[in-house]
Amino acid sequence: MRTSVKLDQLMEALRCLPGVGPKSAQRMAFQLLQRDRKGGLQLADALSQAMTEIGHCSQCRTFTEEETCHICLNPKRQANGQLCVVESPADIAAVESTGQFSGRYFVLMGHLSPLDGIGPSDIGLDELDYRLKVGDIEEVILATNPTVEGEATAQYIAELCHLHKVNASRIAHGVPVGGELDLVDGTTLSHSLLGRQKI
Amino acid sequence: MRTSVKLDQLMEALRCLPGVGPKSAQRMAFQLLQRDRKGGLQLADALSQAMTEIGHCSQCRTFTEEETCHICLNPKRQANGQLCVVESPADIAAVESTGQFSGRYFVLMGHLSPLDGIGPSDIGLDELDYRLKVGDIEEVILATNPTVEGEATAQYIAELCHLHKVNASRIAHGVPVGGELDLVDGTTLSHSLLGRQKI
Repeated sequence: MRTSVKLDQLMEALRCLPGVGPKSAQRMAFQLLQRDRKGGLQLADALSQAMTEIGHCSQCRTFTEEETCHICLNPKRQANGQLCVVESPADIAAVESTGQFSGRYFVLMGHLSPLDGIGPSDIGLDELDYRLKVGDIEEVILATNPTVEGEATAQYIAELCHLHKVNASRIAHGVPVGGELDLVDGTTLSHSLLGRQKI
Repeated sequence: MRTSVKLDQLMEALRCLPGVGPKSAQRMAFQLLQRDRKGGLQLADALSQAMTEIGHCSQCRTFTEEETCHICLNPKRQANGQLCVVESPADIAAVESTGQFSGRYFVLMGHLSPLDGIGPSDIGLDELDYRLKVGDIEEVILATNPTVEGEATAQYIAELCHLHKVNASRIAHGVPVGGELDLVDGTTLSHSLLGRQKI
């Protein structure tokens, strides 16, 4: 359809969003034009501000437009000696939603992957090394993803912690709560057996 | 998560898009920030241009940033006396993709719905009335949706056409090509029988 160049540009631009194909892009463009131009303008504004102003926290490397994020600046969290290492900023949201953790975070923004040329310095491990050296961290909780790369990254960081004589722990792998035992894969179940706890 | 106000604003703003909930909005925001800031800025630009500059074609009422859209200005299409009436600009894209139609369009931007207070003038039928009066239209093809409201709207426009002594036709309802007969609903099948053609 060649009725509007700007409409075509909008549909093309919408496809940079994950999971948005030509049909969804068309639906989104028409929906905004027909029913929610104000929302569209707000989105344009939020996007351009976020893309230009959001950088990384100087302490934990998560996304923030400040020099240091609110979590790292929180005195209560600073007093807590726990540091939770996660792969991405989305993981912070997941851990925060549990309400179980009141320490600080460190975001790797990826995981070790030598085949892709991603080494320790690419995921900020020199910064982590410095923070462990400074000495206000008592325990590092390794909450990387339970994948091969995540495990390898956790292992690498655990060794770093041992060098600095800082305790390191790994989040538990096991049967998901509410799941059914016969639907769980063998590897998870064997982790679940190995990690059994006395009750 | 309170690490970034602008990130929260972006996630909130993304939810104006149809089919985007909190989780998708989070995924979109992180994807753009981590991997495609340039795409995000292009989207912001395309959005603000589209929302402020795109209006309606003076002839067919579809979305365009020009006074009159390219389809209406095309001399070949002007020479063709057919006018296809559709409910939304997306329907133009659908009809155009068939390559079967080389006339002009008229976009209602909705359908008659007295219960919602949508009358003939709200869907541009006074403009259509004027165009039928002017006399360069030989046939009106009614391609409104095969819903109750779409049918009622088609019926109303057909009567308008008869008043002006212009031929009106309705697109065929029947079994979709490639479909299976036993999976087609009864109403469609009865339309299909009534609309049978000699071969």
